[in-house]
Amino acid sequence: MTIKKGKFITVEGGEGAGKSSNLAFIRDLLEQSGCEVVFTREPGGTALGEDIRDLLLGHKHTGMASDTELMLMFAARAEHLNRLILPALNQGKWVLCDRFTDASYAYQGGGRGIDMSRIKLLETWVQKGVNPDLTLLLDLPVQTGLDRAGQRSEPDRFEVEQTAFFERVRTTYLERAQQEPDRFQIIDAAVTLPQVQEQIGHVVSAFLQKRDIADE
Amino acid sequence: MTIKKGKFITVEGGEGAGKSSNLAFIRDLLEQSGCEVVFTREPGGTALGEDIRDLLLGHKHTGMASDTELMLMFAARAEHLNRLILPALNQGKWVLCDRFTDASYAYQGGGRGIDMSRIKLLETWVQKGVNPDLTLLLDLPVQTGLDRAGQRSEPDRFEVEQTAFFERVRTTYLERAQQEPDRFQIIDAAVTLPQVQEQIGHVVSAFLQKRDIADE
Repeated sequence: MTIKKGKFITVEGGEGAGKSSNLAFIRDLLEQSGCEVVFTREPGGTALGEDIRDLLLGHKHTGMASDTELMLMFAARAEHLNRLILPALNQGKWVLCDRFTDASYAYQGGGRGIDMSRIKLLETWVQKGVNPDLTLLLDLPVQTGLDRAGQRSEPDRFEVEQTAFFERVRTTYLERAQQEPDRFQIIDAAVTLPQVQEQIGHVVSAFLQKRDIADE
Repeated sequence: MTIKKGKFITVEGGEGAGKSSNLAFIRDLLEQSGCEVVFTREPGGTALGEDIRDLLLGHKHTGMASDTELMLMFAARAEHLNRLILPALNQGKWVLCDRFTDASYAYQGGGRGIDMSRIKLLETWVQKGVNPDLTLLLDLPVQTGLDRAGQRSEPDRFEVEQTAFFERVRTTYLERAQQEPDRFQIIDAAVTLPQVQEQIGHVVSAFLQKRDIADE
């Protein structure tokens, strides 16, 4: 018997989109359907990746060059893919990841203004054709998200950016979703949590069903 | 009066080549000639760069992916150029740097086997045409260098590599010196320290003289 490869699901979204609670919800849905789930995040997910995350999100290195930021993101990602994501998928596990390369396009490309072709090239190098099978984009108006996020304490080095930055992030996410409609599912995250979870429930059910049909 | 741009000098070499003592010697020569010298190193040279250096050279993250290693090197380099090297050169200071991009070609390209075209592309992105004006390559047979280096304690994550790795590093350094004979000066580092310093003295004097002629 050969082990079937697991599926790779990512969740993206701007500030205050409710990623944490919804990631936990998705994880439960997948586990209830019998999937073995590896739950991870970017930047991070490995010991080295988490050290890089501290450099990226902490306030010690405020004002780092945007090239530096982009390469640190992909350094962490290369490690994450090699040591955690690919081994898990090859063992038939499902990988559920809090942000992935779409976030590099949105934050470093849209937000910081780094040429998208650079991000594309690093993506090709590092991922070697490995892409998420499903990406849920939790979308909501920037101000709504900032109002929600403002209730939390201690913003990180990205969360202190201005509204215009987050507008560019949102626009880039939505453009990517439009470019890859088969992979992306846009979730309206401006509504109440039960309403968001209803949408997520539909998307995840449909994805699991499609897999079951493909497996028959 | 416009400030004349400073010169950018790098020193490269494998294990046990005597970089530290010879860097101090070069610094003295330059300062005696009236140059204001900023002395720095790679990976490192900035607060963030030094944190990245710890990740690269320490033993906490043994076995990191070679893509990760390469991108961490260039992340540190982007920061180094933006925050230290370019501002210093623009203020008319001379920058003397312990290793630079040639080391990425030698260690990550030659040593780890990463495609040189990738390194070239990152170099182009990050350096935007800024290259050393003079590179001194302290060259010696690998075994001689390892014997010398072995007398020191606590090897870092690169110094624990095998002889074949260091042979590839040396070969790559020598190939690069051949490709850019105007920038590179090969110093025979297998001889005694006074003999090495005699060679370095000639090279640095000639470089300073060339500058004085160009300045007239």
